[in-house]
Amino acid sequence: MMISVCGPNEATEQEYADAVAIGQAIASADHTVVCGGRQGVMEAVAKGATEAGGTAIGILPTYDTRDANPFLTHRIPTGLGHARNTIVVASGDAVIAVGGGFGTLSEIGLALKMGKPVIHLNSWDLDSDRIAHFADDDASYTPASSPNEAVRLAIDAVARQAPGHG
Amino acid sequence: MMISVCGPNEATEQEYADAVAIGQAIASADHTVVCGGRQGVMEAVAKGATEAGGTAIGILPTYDTRDANPFLTHRIPTGLGHARNTIVVASGDAVIAVGGGFGTLSEIGLALKMGKPVIHLNSWDLDSDRIAHFADDDASYTPASSPNEAVRLAIDAVARQAPGHG
Amino acid sequence: MMISVCGPNEATEQEYADAVAIGQAIASADHTVVCGGRQGVMEAVAKGATEAGGTAIGILPTYDTRDANPFLTHRIPTGLGHARNTIVVASGDAVIAVGGGFGTLSEIGLALKMGKPVIHLNSWDLDSDRIAHFADDDASYTPASSPNEAVRLAIDAVARQAPGHG
Amino acid sequence: MMISVCGPNEATEQEYADAVAIGQAIASADHTVVCGGRQGVMEAVAKGATEAGGTAIGILPTYDTRDANPFLTHRIPTGLGHARNTIVVASGDAVIAVGGGFGTLSEIGLALKMGKPVIHLNSWDLDSDRIAHFADDDASYTPASSPNEAVRLAIDAVARQAPGHG
Repeated sequence: MMISVCGPNEATEQEYADAVAIGQAIASADHTVVCGGRQGVMEAVAKGATEAGGTAIGILPTYDTRDANPFLTHRIPTGLGHARNTIVVASGDAVIAVGGGFGTLSEIGLALKMGKPVIHLNSWDLDSDRIAHFADDDASYTPASSPNEAVRLAIDAVARQAPGHG
Repeated sequence: MMISVCGPNEATEQEYADAVAIGQAIASADHTVVCGGRQGVMEAVAKGATEAGGTAIGILPTYDTRDANPFLTHRIPTGLGHARNTIVVASGDAVIAVGGGFGTLSEIGLALKMGKPVIHLNSWDLDSDRIAHFADDDASYTPASSPNEAVRLAIDAVARQAPGHG
Repeated sequence: MMISVCGPNEATEQEYADAVAIGQAIASADHTVVCGGRQGVMEAVAKGATEAGGTAIGILPTYDTRDANPFLTHRIPTGLGHARNTIVVASGDAVIAVGGGFGTLSEIGLALKMGKPVIHLNSWDLDSDRIAHFADDDASYTPASSPNEAVRLAIDAVARQAPGHG
Repeated sequence: MMISVCGPNEATEQEYADAVAIGQAIASADHTVVCGGRQGVMEAVAKGATEAGGTAIGILPTYDTRDANPFLTHRIPTGLGHARNTIVVASGDAVIAVGGGFGTLSEIGLALKMGKPVIHLNSWDLDSDRIAHFADDDASYTPASSPNEAVRLAIDAVARQAPGHG
């Protein structure tokens, strides 16, 4: 299973610590992290995953792998700018948003559009009625109260999906 | 000036009528509409603009121009799937969101990330504190109470930007 | 009909003059030019088309419309880097390559892959056996000896396609 | 080091065997394969790499990981259609083309445009004067006579590049 982790390039201390813990929990469950490959939450989740012996793949917005954080197992320099957000999200069976600004908001929208479960930890509050109205397939937007709960909710959501899905 | 208009592929009657009026107002002000090229709000705004003698450009998600609505002046079949949302938004000096589901949510996030003014009419309610925290450049998220007000706010926001911007 | 015109950012005098003439011929036939929006051949074809009263759409690689040449009717800033070549080609019913380096080579490959007719004027010599082996649908790679012939061949190739195609 | 391997979705027996050997040689040198993730040459190189204990990353054109061949270590479903070719090429420090039709031709063009060394084995014959005229940075187009030579030439070309490059 691949789990996309989204969050801002400039993380608070709390967001950084949370993202490290999320990376560790994903790696401990033998799953792979995919992220945007840069700093802040993206760096923290890659650090957590790879220091715990797991794998982290970074989907970079530029062609320059030197823009990547140093904790990635694999660096994919797309040159697509903000359009690379689509690939970060498409690569995950589920998506976890940690904190987050406008890039993260776009990733939440894209993930829900693709029918994926999204777990959020201190990220955007979104109108639950509007979400329910548009949600189909396996789209959902679920709050978590801790990094471990976020990862558990993400894995459970994927497990509940129909076999062969996605 | 190009104004991006975003909204769902399946519009309500109210959303359709609003988007037609927005297209008319943009065309009357001698500006160009850019949209996602498909049905619902995208079709309505193209219809409004071109029936008023203006221009509407549709940025399509597939390679097949037959997916386009019949009111577009120009059809750009990108084949990029959801990543085409990035181009819809990047092409506008300002963005107007009408109603909207998850694709529209992603476009709002992308537009704010790119530092563009976004006007919304019956679209997503978003946490204004979080928006203020992350907004830089000319990013803003402003409600409108009518189609004409939406277009006026969009044009005014672009006019306020520094000369040579964007 | 939209005709994509590809060629290098730094054109020779001959290439520039040829591209101007191609733009004029496309506009005279009431068709629309799509190009990469920058300098060299892209500028020349836009200049030819719009000075003849036609329309030229530029698909730019960056988000910055100031990268565009001044002759475009519409500027689409994609931010996709080299991936924007795909959109330049996808937008045309036929493709004309004038001169050309590696970006143009990629556009020839993409156009043939999409099953489009490609006309070339002083561009890449390609192994015709290999082309014949892989060509399906309406893919073809045809030399032209003048700008006017290039445009005529492009229009004829599209006219020969099955109704409703593309 | 990551090495991109390009080639058609429908490979001949020779191309399939060559691509398996290329994957084995890349894995034996402790480098990572990146490819388009589908069948033919893409499948063969992934099979060769992973059966030799290495890693193969597949950059898929659709959102559906079921389009992938079964030998990939990681699957990146981009949904970008032919634009995903750009990412296949951008991810490699060098590119090896095996056989190949129009998609491969586009990847050769993109790789040379990005200034990358390209090694080809029974692939497109290209005008060497035109290549020399446009080549800058580390772009080159070099024939190989065997899978092992192709991999050795690719690794050597990257090693010759300036430190910190790419």
